[in-house]
Amino acid sequence: MNNEFDWIKSVTPTKKYHSSVEVGIGDDAAIYSHGPNEESVVAVDTMVEGVHFKKETMPIKSIGYKVLAVNLSDLAAMGAKPRYFLVSIAIPKQGWSQEETREIYAGMNELADKWEVDLIGGDTVSTKGPLVLTVTVIGSVEKGKRLLRSNAKPADLLFTTGELGLSAYGLEMLLKTGLEVIEDVSLAPFMKAHQKPEPQLEAGRLFASSGYRVSLNDISDGIANEAKEIAGASDVDIIIDWDKLAIRDEFLEHSLEKQEEWVLYSGEDFQLVGTMSEMDFDKISAVFKEHDLRLYKIGYVEKGNGRVFLERRGNRSTIDKTGYHHF
Amino acid sequence: MNNEFDWIKSVTPTKKYHSSVEVGIGDDAAIYSHGPNEESVVAVDTMVEGVHFKKETMPIKSIGYKVLAVNLSDLAAMGAKPRYFLVSIAIPKQGWSQEETREIYAGMNELADKWEVDLIGGDTVSTKGPLVLTVTVIGSVEKGKRLLRSNAKPADLLFTTGELGLSAYGLEMLLKTGLEVIEDVSLAPFMKAHQKPEPQLEAGRLFASSGYRVSLNDISDGIANEAKEIAGASDVDIIIDWDKLAIRDEFLEHSLEKQEEWVLYSGEDFQLVGTMSEMDFDKISAVFKEHDLRLYKIGYVEKGNGRVFLERRGNRSTIDKTGYHHF
Repeated sequence: MNNEFDWIKSVTPTKKYHSSVEVGIGDDAAIYSHGPNEESVVAVDTMVEGVHFKKETMPIKSIGYKVLAVNLSDLAAMGAKPRYFLVSIAIPKQGWSQEETREIYAGMNELADKWEVDLIGGDTVSTKGPLVLTVTVIGSVEKGKRLLRSNAKPADLLFTTGELGLSAYGLEMLLKTGLEVIEDVSLAPFMKAHQKPEPQLEAGRLFASSGYRVSLNDISDGIANEAKEIAGASDVDIIIDWDKLAIRDEFLEHSLEKQEEWVLYSGEDFQLVGTMSEMDFDKISAVFKEHDLRLYKIGYVEKGNGRVFLERRGNRSTIDKTGYHHF
Repeated sequence: MNNEFDWIKSVTPTKKYHSSVEVGIGDDAAIYSHGPNEESVVAVDTMVEGVHFKKETMPIKSIGYKVLAVNLSDLAAMGAKPRYFLVSIAIPKQGWSQEETREIYAGMNELADKWEVDLIGGDTVSTKGPLVLTVTVIGSVEKGKRLLRSNAKPADLLFTTGELGLSAYGLEMLLKTGLEVIEDVSLAPFMKAHQKPEPQLEAGRLFASSGYRVSLNDISDGIANEAKEIAGASDVDIIIDWDKLAIRDEFLEHSLEKQEEWVLYSGEDFQLVGTMSEMDFDKISAVFKEHDLRLYKIGYVEKGNGRVFLERRGNRSTIDKTGYHHF
């Protein structure tokens, strides 16, 4: 008990970024106040040991970094500014030291400090099973600026904010060779994508601030699946143009099937995918360049009813509900 | 996948109570708007199978009811109105059917319907360990009306909103005899307290609306411990008067040690404990009576530094950090 008390104290923040935090950790609930013209944006994501991460393939600090990143990525996809987060951790009775669980919080704090997000609450429980980490993030977005999946319209183009498949490729390397693979510098971008993905919050805010009509999703489950969600919510068809996708050189020596698995179906890159008009795209691309960010045009939107197609050299195939495509 | 999709659909609400829900389930995050003079109140609580509940002692529907009740109780302790909740569930690969997990949501919905709380988001993952349920609740409270632990002052009296020890006694009966004990009507209040505790939201709102200075906590960990938190946050001493505590007749045939364990140290009754001035107490007691609610005066507050004492027939003993008292 005393020990648990000290542990909680050690992971309780000693500063706050937002004066809107009226009550932080230390009462039954946290309280925050709102700006006059904003709405609250809230999401929750869970990572389970043995399912979403293993000590064998994730430095412990990265586990914390990633679970917060996954959540902040949801805010990015709404065009929101991140503000606060709460952490619930179920700690196994065996196999995890207090130092290790503190290291998880250190990883979260590394990212929280970067984006100035305040830890305002949480719960700490024990479990006889694997470690379970649940993060709730809260952000804000100006009224009328939110970016929904349902915003796509025929004649839009499909875009993404970065290269895809890096996380999946990184994980495959890790599973082959274990954590020592990290020392191979040529694999650094893949390790980074898998272990410490960057939520595209700046990109999300640029879209929101632009005032353009943008449909947006973060790529947690593979771009084929995310495009499917946009197509379904907007009641349009989306065509992904394979020839326009930026494929990493490292992938090219592998089979096309492997390449598709990484690029289209694997997810966890936490880039953004969305649609907007061609004219707005050209204007916002220039803004992105000024901010050292990139936008890739990778397909287009047609009238339809929620289907996603893959186009290669002019030939179309359907991508089905489970994410795989069939000729 | 298809199956998972159907399951998620089956637990997704088809109505909403609050028009302030701008975006519910179905995008990357939920969005809600705020009233002009309110603050957001947020809390998270986790229940783990084998630690916080077992199928052997909890009907499955009650598991869902209780995890939401525990969270709403945190809002009650702040004087907040409940508004929204998010659910993250880690489902074991074995041992739980889809029907059973749906039953958990049915239990949550029973309570959510009662208090008009909207399910606005969540996450569903699998685990190789026990089932883990994490609920995030969001409420609102008018500016300046929130009720904090740090509000206690010397000469306040200590009160609670109900009888204590019922949940612990109920659990003990359940562990002795299993779920069939439920059919014993004389045990009904104890079963109810353990399996389907009622968050004291109405009481919390009456305190908040009164405008009186009230310090408040919900009793999740035993009144001795909760009083300790108020005493610590308010920098006062609190004296619990054993002779004023309402002790259930059923407890009286057991040893004093057992009675103390149930009433002082066991928690999970989710009544509220707090302090306020004698004068305000008399006035608000009348209001409570009009609402068919009760308030029990069970002790008082003195100048001090965070200590809690137990008084019996005029003799005082100290209650230590771990919750037990020593003469």
